[in-house]
Amino acid sequence: MTPAEAFARLATDLVETDPDLVAGYAHDEATLTGTGAPAAVLLPRTTDDVARMLNIAHTHCIPVVTRGAGSGLSGAATAPPGSVVLSTHRMAAIREIDPVERLAVVEPGVVTADLGAAARAVGLFYPPDPGSIAFCTVGGNVATNAGGMCCVKYGVTGDFVLGLEVVLADGTVTRTGRRTAKGVAGYDLTALLVGSEGTLGVITEVTLRLLPAPSPARTLVATFPSLRAAGSAVGALAAEGVPLSMLEILDRTTLGAIDAATGMGIAHGIAAMVLAQCDDIAATDTIARVGRLCEQHGADEVAVSDDDAEADALLEARRQALPSLERLGDWILDDVCVPRSQVVALIDRVEEVAAAEGLVIGVFGHAGDGNMHPTIVYDRHDDASAAAARRAFDAITRAALDLGGTITGEHGIGRLKRDWLTEELDPGALAMSRAVKAALDPLGILNPGCVLA
Amino acid sequence: MTPAEAFARLATDLVETDPDLVAGYAHDEATLTGTGAPAAVLLPRTTDDVARMLNIAHTHCIPVVTRGAGSGLSGAATAPPGSVVLSTHRMAAIREIDPVERLAVVEPGVVTADLGAAARAVGLFYPPDPGSIAFCTVGGNVATNAGGMCCVKYGVTGDFVLGLEVVLADGTVTRTGRRTAKGVAGYDLTALLVGSEGTLGVITEVTLRLLPAPSPARTLVATFPSLRAAGSAVGALAAEGVPLSMLEILDRTTLGAIDAATGMGIAHGIAAMVLAQCDDIAATDTIARVGRLCEQHGADEVAVSDDDAEADALLEARRQALPSLERLGDWILDDVCVPRSQVVALIDRVEEVAAAEGLVIGVFGHAGDGNMHPTIVYDRHDDASAAAARRAFDAITRAALDLGGTITGEHGIGRLKRDWLTEELDPGALAMSRAVKAALDPLGILNPGCVLA
Repeated sequence: MTPAEAFARLATDLVETDPDLVAGYAHDEATLTGTGAPAAVLLPRTTDDVARMLNIAHTHCIPVVTRGAGSGLSGAATAPPGSVVLSTHRMAAIREIDPVERLAVVEPGVVTADLGAAARAVGLFYPPDPGSIAFCTVGGNVATNAGGMCCVKYGVTGDFVLGLEVVLADGTVTRTGRRTAKGVAGYDLTALLVGSEGTLGVITEVTLRLLPAPSPARTLVATFPSLRAAGSAVGALAAEGVPLSMLEILDRTTLGAIDAATGMGIAHGIAAMVLAQCDDIAATDTIARVGRLCEQHGADEVAVSDDDAEADALLEARRQALPSLERLGDWILDDVCVPRSQVVALIDRVEEVAAAEGLVIGVFGHAGDGNMHPTIVYDRHDDASAAAARRAFDAITRAALDLGGTITGEHGIGRLKRDWLTEELDPGALAMSRAVKAALDPLGILNPGCVLA
Repeated sequence: MTPAEAFARLATDLVETDPDLVAGYAHDEATLTGTGAPAAVLLPRTTDDVARMLNIAHTHCIPVVTRGAGSGLSGAATAPPGSVVLSTHRMAAIREIDPVERLAVVEPGVVTADLGAAARAVGLFYPPDPGSIAFCTVGGNVATNAGGMCCVKYGVTGDFVLGLEVVLADGTVTRTGRRTAKGVAGYDLTALLVGSEGTLGVITEVTLRLLPAPSPARTLVATFPSLRAAGSAVGALAAEGVPLSMLEILDRTTLGAIDAATGMGIAHGIAAMVLAQCDDIAATDTIARVGRLCEQHGADEVAVSDDDAEADALLEARRQALPSLERLGDWILDDVCVPRSQVVALIDRVEEVAAAEGLVIGVFGHAGDGNMHPTIVYDRHDDASAAAARRAFDAITRAALDLGGTITGEHGIGRLKRDWLTEELDPGALAMSRAVKAALDPLGILNPGCVLA
C-alpha cells in the first residue's frame, strides 16, 4: 500500500499529495543532506489527528518526518523517499499564559516570536531566541533543543520546558513532566524528548516556564585590531563571570562580507567585533566595566547604548552576518561548541582550513558559550569547490572535538552529522541511544536516518 | 551461587559480608519502606572496580542497590533481600575545578558541602543545597535530582550536571554529556540518568557547572498572625517575580514544635513564619521591598539582616524544623509540590487531614517553588497510630495531585511512592518508562523495585 493509499481514510484536507505542494515540505535549510522526496504531507489540526496519523503509519510501517517551520540547519526535516512529512503548522494556538505560575501552554506550531510577544504582553519573558525566531516554531525549537544569543545567561530551549504532550510511535497520546516549579516523579522523559529531533515521538503540546521581564538592556559593541585581542577580552569576560545576557563575536571574514553586503563602512583594519548586552539592574555599571575591559585588551573603539533604537543599530552587524555570507555564494553553516577558552584557537584553526582549501569561511557566534558558526562559502556547481567545502566542514568539526568541544552546540545532529555522532559518543553511549530508540519506536518509523544511522 | 560467593573473586577489602557491618548499609532514612536485608556491601575505589562488580552482578543476576550517604527519604537505597549494596563513599575525590570554564569534575562520593567549599575557595559557587548538605553526596544528589532552598533561584541538582561517567547494567563504562556550555549531540542521556535513582546505571563521575560567586546575601524573617496572611504575602512575592534566592514558610504546628524543642520563644499568636533571602547586587532594595510587602499583607514582625551571623540566627528556626518535629515521636516526611498559588490550599488540606486523623502534622518547605514537606508525627508501635499516619500520608499526596501538583518535588519515588507513580503518570508515560528501563537494564538488576514496581 502506498502512503497516499494508507492515509486516504483521513479527511482530504488533512493530507496533501500534490507533488508541487509536497515539494515545499521536502527539506529544511541544511545543505549536504539532499532535497528530500516525501510521498505526502500530513496536516493535522489536533492531537487526535496526529494520533490517528501515527496509528496508520505504524500499521503500515510508513516513515514519518515531523516538521515545524523547516528552518532547521541539520537536515532533521529532510524527508527520505517513501516517507510522509507531518507538519505541525496548523496547531498554532497559545492555549494558556498563566502570569501567577509564570508558565505558557502552547501548541507546537506557535511561532517563537509570537510566544515572546504574548509573554511580554503580560509582563513576562520567554528568553529563547534562535536566529530564525521570526518564523521558527516552538515545537521545532523543543525538538532540536534550540539555542540563540540569550543562552549565555538564560540557557537553551530545554531549560524552559516543564512538560509535554506527545504522540508515541504507535499513536498513543501521553503526557510527560509537570506544571509545578519542581518535580522528580519518575524518569525525566521530558528531557529525553527535548532535542530528540522527531525520532522518539511527535510533540503536540508544550508547557513552558516563563520569567519575570528583565531590566532594560544596555548594549556594547567593541572593535579590535586583532582576533587575539578580541579573544583575550572575551576570555577575560568569561573568566570573571561578568553577568551578560549576550556575548557575540564576528571575525574579519564575516565583517568583510557584512561591509560588502551593506556598505556599513566597517573599517578595514578591524579584525574582530565583540557585541555584549546586559539586562539586569546593574546593566549600566556592568557594560561600563565591559567597555573598560575591552579597552584594556586593545579595543580600537567601544560604543555603548541604552536606547533600544541605537542598540538595534549596534546589533545590525550581527544580524547581517549570515545573510551577508550567504550573498557570497553557496554556503554550509557549521555549528560547533568548544570550551570558552578555546574560541580563539577554533577561529585560528578555521583560518588555517580556509587557507588550505582556498575557501572563504566566516566565523561568528556565541562567544560567551564557545558556540561558533563557521560558515563555508563555496560553489555547489563546481565539484572541486564542493569537495573542498566538504573537507573543510569535516576539518572544522574535527577541530572542535580536538579542542575538547562538541560537534553541535545548538543545531542538532539531523542527517548532516549522524556519522559524526559516532566520533563524539563512545560505544556505550551509542548503544544506550540505540536501545532507547528501539524501545520507544520499535518499527523505526519516526524520522529514520535522523540522529542515528 | 550466593552473592557472597559470586563476589568472592574481588579483593577482600572490596566486599563486606559481616552482617553487623552490612546492616549499617541496609536502608536510607525513609520510613514505611522497611529496614532492608542486603547480602553484602560492595566498596569500590575506582570506576574499574564498579565495572567488575556490575559485570559479576549481571552474570549472576544479582540485584545491586547503589547508595551515596544513605540520607535519602524515599527508600531508593533500602536494599531488598538477596541484593547487594554498592556504596560509593570511597570514590570521594574532587578531580578538577576549572575556574575559567567554571566546572568541576568529581567522584560520586564527594560530600556536597565539600564541593561547595572547594568552589568557594576559588571564588565560584555550587548552589545545590539539600537539607543533608553536610553529609549527603554529589552522586546521591544526582541520582535523586536533589533540590534544596536555593532552587527558587538556581534550580535543582540536574540543572548543574553537564556530563556523567556511568557504568551500565552489564559493566560497560560510558560517558554522557559534555564539558562545554552548550551541546545537543544525540539524546540527552545525562538528563535521563539524573534522577533515575540507581535504576539505569551507576554514576562514577560527575561534571558540574559552577557559577560566579553571588553577592552577599540579605535575609528577612517575617511572622504572621494567620496562615492566610503569610500565604497572600508569599503569593504576591511569587506573582511579582521578586528575585529571591530563598523563600521558605513554616506553619503553626512546626513553629510550636520548634519552640518546644529549642525554647526559642516564638510567640503563641504566630500562625506562620516566612523566610526570604536575596543574593544579587540589588539585595538591599529587594529585601526592603519584601519587608514592605509582608507588612502590607499583615505581618506582625519583620526582621532583616545583612550580617552573616545575624542571618544565621534568623534562619535557625528553619533549620530546626525537622529536628524539632522528629523529637515529637516517629515521623514520616512527605515531599509534594503544588503550583505556587496553591501552597495555602495545601496547608489547609493538611490541617484538615491532621484533625480528621488526630495526628500532629507540621508543614514547612520551599514556598517559592510550592514544594512542601508535611511531616506526620505518629507512634509506630501503636497500630492505630501507624494506620492513621499511612492514611494521612496518602491523603496529603492525593491532595497535591488534586491541586495540580506532583507526588514528589525533590525526594524522588524510591520505594515509598512507586505505587503513587501510577497515579501521577498516564499509561503511556508509564509504558515509556518501563520500556526505557527494560532497554537499559534488561535483567532488571539495577535497584529493582525502585521507581517502577
